[in-house]
Amino acid sequence: MNTPILDIARRARRAAAGLSVLSASKKNGALEAMARALSKNKKFILSENKKDVAAARKKGLAPSLVNRLLLSEAKLVEIAGSVALIAKLGDPVGRVLSARKRPNGLVIQKVRVPIGVILIIYESRPNVTADCMALCLKSGNSVILKGGSEALFSNRAIYRVMNGAALKAGVPEGAFEFVATGARAAVKTLLRLNEWIDLVIPRGGEGLIRQVARISKIPVIKHTKGICHVYVDKDADLEKSEAIVVNAKVQNPAVCNAMETLLVHEAAAKKFLPRVAAALREKKVELRGCDRTRAIVPGVKKASEKDWTTEYLDLVLSIRVVKNLEEAVRHIGTHGSHHSDAIVTENKKTAEVFTRAVDSACVFVNASTRFSDGGEFGMGAEMGISTDKLHARGPMGLEELTSYKYVVLGDGQTRG
Amino acid sequence: MNTPILDIARRARRAAAGLSVLSASKKNGALEAMARALSKNKKFILSENKKDVAAARKKGLAPSLVNRLLLSEAKLVEIAGSVALIAKLGDPVGRVLSARKRPNGLVIQKVRVPIGVILIIYESRPNVTADCMALCLKSGNSVILKGGSEALFSNRAIYRVMNGAALKAGVPEGAFEFVATGARAAVKTLLRLNEWIDLVIPRGGEGLIRQVARISKIPVIKHTKGICHVYVDKDADLEKSEAIVVNAKVQNPAVCNAMETLLVHEAAAKKFLPRVAAALREKKVELRGCDRTRAIVPGVKKASEKDWTTEYLDLVLSIRVVKNLEEAVRHIGTHGSHHSDAIVTENKKTAEVFTRAVDSACVFVNASTRFSDGGEFGMGAEMGISTDKLHARGPMGLEELTSYKYVVLGDGQTRG
Repeated sequence: MNTPILDIARRARRAAAGLSVLSASKKNGALEAMARALSKNKKFILSENKKDVAAARKKGLAPSLVNRLLLSEAKLVEIAGSVALIAKLGDPVGRVLSARKRPNGLVIQKVRVPIGVILIIYESRPNVTADCMALCLKSGNSVILKGGSEALFSNRAIYRVMNGAALKAGVPEGAFEFVATGARAAVKTLLRLNEWIDLVIPRGGEGLIRQVARISKIPVIKHTKGICHVYVDKDADLEKSEAIVVNAKVQNPAVCNAMETLLVHEAAAKKFLPRVAAALREKKVELRGCDRTRAIVPGVKKASEKDWTTEYLDLVLSIRVVKNLEEAVRHIGTHGSHHSDAIVTENKKTAEVFTRAVDSACVFVNASTRFSDGGEFGMGAEMGISTDKLHARGPMGLEELTSYKYVVLGDGQTRG
Repeated sequence: MNTPILDIARRARRAAAGLSVLSASKKNGALEAMARALSKNKKFILSENKKDVAAARKKGLAPSLVNRLLLSEAKLVEIAGSVALIAKLGDPVGRVLSARKRPNGLVIQKVRVPIGVILIIYESRPNVTADCMALCLKSGNSVILKGGSEALFSNRAIYRVMNGAALKAGVPEGAFEFVATGARAAVKTLLRLNEWIDLVIPRGGEGLIRQVARISKIPVIKHTKGICHVYVDKDADLEKSEAIVVNAKVQNPAVCNAMETLLVHEAAAKKFLPRVAAALREKKVELRGCDRTRAIVPGVKKASEKDWTTEYLDLVLSIRVVKNLEEAVRHIGTHGSHHSDAIVTENKKTAEVFTRAVDSACVFVNASTRFSDGGEFGMGAEMGISTDKLHARGPMGLEELTSYKYVVLGDGQTRG
């Protein structure tokens, strides 16, 4: 057993008890201090960030990856703003979720409590460090941060600045723990500590997430891929359809809630496909389609079976003409990733069947899949998006970082 | 890969889609038919049960274990009654848990949905077969039943009778699957099928549960032990204290929510311990105590360190005198199992500190730990009690067998 790693988990566990009873005002005061500290120490953070960026460039990382690493004054203002915003959200801890009085007089309350110790394993983006620290503190959990080695200097700088401010504001030591070693062995050790750690949230590429899920002894909440669909029904408004399809594909193709496959009802295909193809091509989207699509739109590359299960994360779209709603639902069930899927239709009944039958975390009617996001859902901030079905599904905010306990109030009741 | 086992899982997965959209009236009709079928076929079930009981006696099983296996007409009436009761509970599926309108006009609904396919691995009691079938159907989940080999004939008879009635009432084939083979290899195969099965609930002894948790690739909800405490505070009403302590220990010592350790504030010990010791001894409870307990009550055996972490499930009680509330909370945190713990006190502030600081699924004030039960909590029926903190904690009823999805209603919104 790797002792420093075990010590980290032990400190986090010890802190969890204190955190769980920390008052809302103390937590909010600490969050505000942490936000201020980020602004005050921007020079230090930016100079540490330069080390990561220089190393990444030297290593020949792709410009898009270097860009994800890069911090700026503006970016730091945004990160601090997000921490300050979390201070303003309602405190989930201690909230009574339900209460009922039993015939014997017992009052049974279901009360929100923190989960305990949460381990975050993440890649690249240094803002995740700040977001996770803020969300975990607000929800009363200790957090162990294990970021990617490529962002080590940036993550550690943000951690040090925020942790220092938090300790001064009365947050117990151990509430935030940082795993500095980049070694894979550290992750393996952490994932075996199910006695000390309650939950793991991996954030990053599919490879990382699958590996964590495979070896973890601790429960994992994850999302592996986002293969999102838009289905344009025979009763769709074609103007709305075009706007939604273009938005879902183009507005930010590199993220998990972008559309990867367009399904079109055969009755709408002849009218809709040529216009949407033109709009998408104007935005430089490469189109791959089934034979029926190719018969309607010239120049579309033939989609292979593999296209239906590929998360392009790029300006590429696969298109399929379907016979009816059932075939669309079946396609999504077979090839999708249970993340976010949309229907465009003016028919309420059709929309209802679709939202019931599609087994995805988020199902949209007449709206872009790009709205699948904690901020857009009004949660204030998000810890990631879950495509699992246990505990948390879809965008994870503060509530999803809590558990509950039953508090039962009696006046001497015994069971007969 | 064991093909028949894989086929079982595939059938269950296929059925889950149909079950998730089955109407409440169809499900309730099927449940009523299943309850009637149990009564109609009591002769068949009881004669099958005799085979298990005879084999158990031949094997020399302990009388208490034989007793758990044994069915009777009265027991079958009770089992059928419980199935009929579940028909009368509200349908959890499709319930809107929250809804909010965003500034852009999007309406974001959080809607309860079934989890999918649930695997139950259980020992002995044949009533678990009926309970799990009823609860899973009502919550819209497929269930795969893997009972212990010692109850194979009884479980299969109940399964056949209920499944036959359900199919006739329109429940999709595959909603109930029964694993007849007693081989351990079958369990190992099942626990690897995380693509087909969404959740495993093991019910039985600690050994079974730990083994399932260790090898499962599927998420597990479990409770390993019930080391429950009653803490009698310095401000406790001693009459209530005595009634609660005796009830928590004696009313059914063989179950997980029975008390195993009594903690007494030092200011109450001299007055309370002699009277409660007399009451417990009258009920044939063996007492083991710390030195301070033994100085007050003669003839108490010295408790070893091991006593504080032992689930006796028997008429044995360990007793410890503590300096104050903090020491009681610390003892429970160190030695307890996060299941059910109680305080007896007339001091509201003390009760509040206790309920916040004790990290257990159920925390009682002035009531017996024996109330930790789905039926007693008003859930109608229970699937088990979870000492985990993710997804479900404490007694698991219908709601705990569900997940949720977000249904987002728009009229053409795109993300800017």
